[in-house]
Amino acid sequence: MSDQATPVAAQASTATPEATSLFAPDSVGLVSARSMEFMTPLMLACGRELASYTLVYETYGKLNADASNAVLICHALSGNHHAAGYYDAQERKPGWWDAYIGPGKPIDTRHFFVVSLNNLGGCHGSTGPSSINPETGKTYGPDFPVLTVKDWVNSQARLADALGIQKWAAVIGGSLGGMQVLQWAISQPERLRHAVVIASTPRLSAQNIAFNEVARQAIMSDPHFYNGRYAEHHTLPRHGLRLARMIGHITYLSEHSMGQKFGRDLRIDKLNYGFDVEFQVESYLRYQGESFSERFDANTYLLMTKALDYFDPAADFNDDLVTAVSQATCDFMVISFTTDWRFAPARSQEIVNALVAAGKAVSYACIDSPHGHDAFLIPNPRYQAVFSAYMHKVHAQITQPTQDH
Amino acid sequence: MSDQATPVAAQASTATPEATSLFAPDSVGLVSARSMEFMTPLMLACGRELASYTLVYETYGKLNADASNAVLICHALSGNHHAAGYYDAQERKPGWWDAYIGPGKPIDTRHFFVVSLNNLGGCHGSTGPSSINPETGKTYGPDFPVLTVKDWVNSQARLADALGIQKWAAVIGGSLGGMQVLQWAISQPERLRHAVVIASTPRLSAQNIAFNEVARQAIMSDPHFYNGRYAEHHTLPRHGLRLARMIGHITYLSEHSMGQKFGRDLRIDKLNYGFDVEFQVESYLRYQGESFSERFDANTYLLMTKALDYFDPAADFNDDLVTAVSQATCDFMVISFTTDWRFAPARSQEIVNALVAAGKAVSYACIDSPHGHDAFLIPNPRYQAVFSAYMHKVHAQITQPTQDH
Repeated sequence: MSDQATPVAAQASTATPEATSLFAPDSVGLVSARSMEFMTPLMLACGRELASYTLVYETYGKLNADASNAVLICHALSGNHHAAGYYDAQERKPGWWDAYIGPGKPIDTRHFFVVSLNNLGGCHGSTGPSSINPETGKTYGPDFPVLTVKDWVNSQARLADALGIQKWAAVIGGSLGGMQVLQWAISQPERLRHAVVIASTPRLSAQNIAFNEVARQAIMSDPHFYNGRYAEHHTLPRHGLRLARMIGHITYLSEHSMGQKFGRDLRIDKLNYGFDVEFQVESYLRYQGESFSERFDANTYLLMTKALDYFDPAADFNDDLVTAVSQATCDFMVISFTTDWRFAPARSQEIVNALVAAGKAVSYACIDSPHGHDAFLIPNPRYQAVFSAYMHKVHAQITQPTQDH
Repeated sequence: MSDQATPVAAQASTATPEATSLFAPDSVGLVSARSMEFMTPLMLACGRELASYTLVYETYGKLNADASNAVLICHALSGNHHAAGYYDAQERKPGWWDAYIGPGKPIDTRHFFVVSLNNLGGCHGSTGPSSINPETGKTYGPDFPVLTVKDWVNSQARLADALGIQKWAAVIGGSLGGMQVLQWAISQPERLRHAVVIASTPRLSAQNIAFNEVARQAIMSDPHFYNGRYAEHHTLPRHGLRLARMIGHITYLSEHSMGQKFGRDLRIDKLNYGFDVEFQVESYLRYQGESFSERFDANTYLLMTKALDYFDPAADFNDDLVTAVSQATCDFMVISFTTDWRFAPARSQEIVNALVAAGKAVSYACIDSPHGHDAFLIPNPRYQAVFSAYMHKVHAQITQPTQDH
């Protein structure tokens, strides 16, 4: 490995036995983030290179002797490295995929060494637009390069190198995370045994791009955006980011689940014939947008939506998805959800059909769920059973006993 | 009739024979708008009243001796009174529903006297937020009252009075226009023989409200909005209105038609890895938003979306749509479109099912179209045939010969 990777803040990220007892037995318990610096320039799809960068990540479970039990979690648009467990005993909410990662859960930390990172370009510790550009001493802002899913896979491969993981037992992700899984399978085929692609798509539709474009325009037309240099102006494009999140949120829920959750319920008992919040769904959306705009970086949001738009692995193979996935050597699990209209089951089936045509081993499940695109994050017995069954198969192929890491 | 209605600018709005020859034989030809002032206060659902107001409208065809051949066209969110024909020989685009109104078209102006108005609260000549408030001498802006579909029906009934139309042969509308039709049937049952409800819904879903709310927030968070008093500040909330229209536009098209129209085609031949327009769909949306923001009033847009949110005729009848439509005495034609996901066929079927349960005469057609919600505006042979057949039935019930108006 040519990278000069330096682990920083190398606390044990898995829980101590005493701390664990504060949490449910199927929780990974207390966790903490680590970070890794990479000093070898990373060449990017856009033609630019990053001279150096940091990735922040968490791990759960123990790496076995031959490093054959490692699984990589790839996050979605607004995700981060904190996928499971708690940072302290007072933390109310665990990591974003805690329902699926832990002892006895589908990604069973008794068997697997789980690596979850914040993607390059993110805003939770990994190098991104809100980091300091070493060349200028100021935040990158809009000067941070536009990234693609391929760039992420390359940066993640270096993290794997640094952790001594030559081949992932599985690479797993939902939505934009699923795109990364597909890209791993295609461009790094020798480095994973299984690919688990959840609620994803082989490429965005015009409608998907359109929603992203409106979100970007909302951010970029906010007068506090300052062409991405809001940090230098000591402000934030809160209104734009709030709108972007509201638009996104509508596409994450199904019409049915929104109806079930809010219907036409009013926040107070009668119409006020004005433009203040009246319906519960308005109140919910405003809250979601508001809280997101305080915690997420606008330039990162723009970057993530562009990576979504650009993802199109077939484009490298004469627009033929079958040829693209023919590069893969791993087995596949593809999961979709009935009411997901952002990346509908038909989009997952495009992946499955291409894999079948390419003669690959693929399992596919379309899970009955009312929760739209968000279903991939939400507890669901059938989804958990299907996911667990596949991960048992992944585990069964690992012969080495686990060891402390 | 208690209204003191004064026709203003009473030019003949139908074409002269010489002018007509410039246009296709199935065009209504040259048309012009009229306006009518109403000096009797109109009580509104919000509890306020409008002391006086003007409605601008067009007519096509001739009213017959007993005024039994009049049909009313109700417009949708961004529509207006210019539904058919041309204002001058150089005008490139005819009225918004020209494909369906004219000699030999479904709404056949050889048989019907067609009335098409700009709704109260609009921004094309009828009294609305951009009109001068006689009490202050300034534009109403945000002081203009919030209107409901019921208010529109009441204001339209006064226009009918002034035109000497006691009973419409049919009231016809798509989308928000269809809601007005349904409201006419329920609250003015003795004043229409037929109701034609196209691409509509008995009430908005939580998702529909959510999209409207994001559009409103986009407008209201534009710093040029000035709480609706942008006219006094000699500016316009262009960015907000542009975003609102972009969001709306996505919901008017089907995912399929957007895919067929744009796919993932790039505007230039390669990705530029930046935030300028890259995909054709982005360019289209920006153009649509831009041109709309120059021609439409933001306060009117807010008002129209609120009228959509509020529409819920069942709410007056203990949330029972069957009881609500039991008030009607007219016959119904309900039309939906397969790929309309804004007001899906299932929403039209709710109306049909309620009408059937109430024992009303109803014809229903779900038209196969790739064009989403916009399908109601677009030429389509099957839709035209079904619509024409129903209008022939409406015409057959009119026994009086037509006369000049």
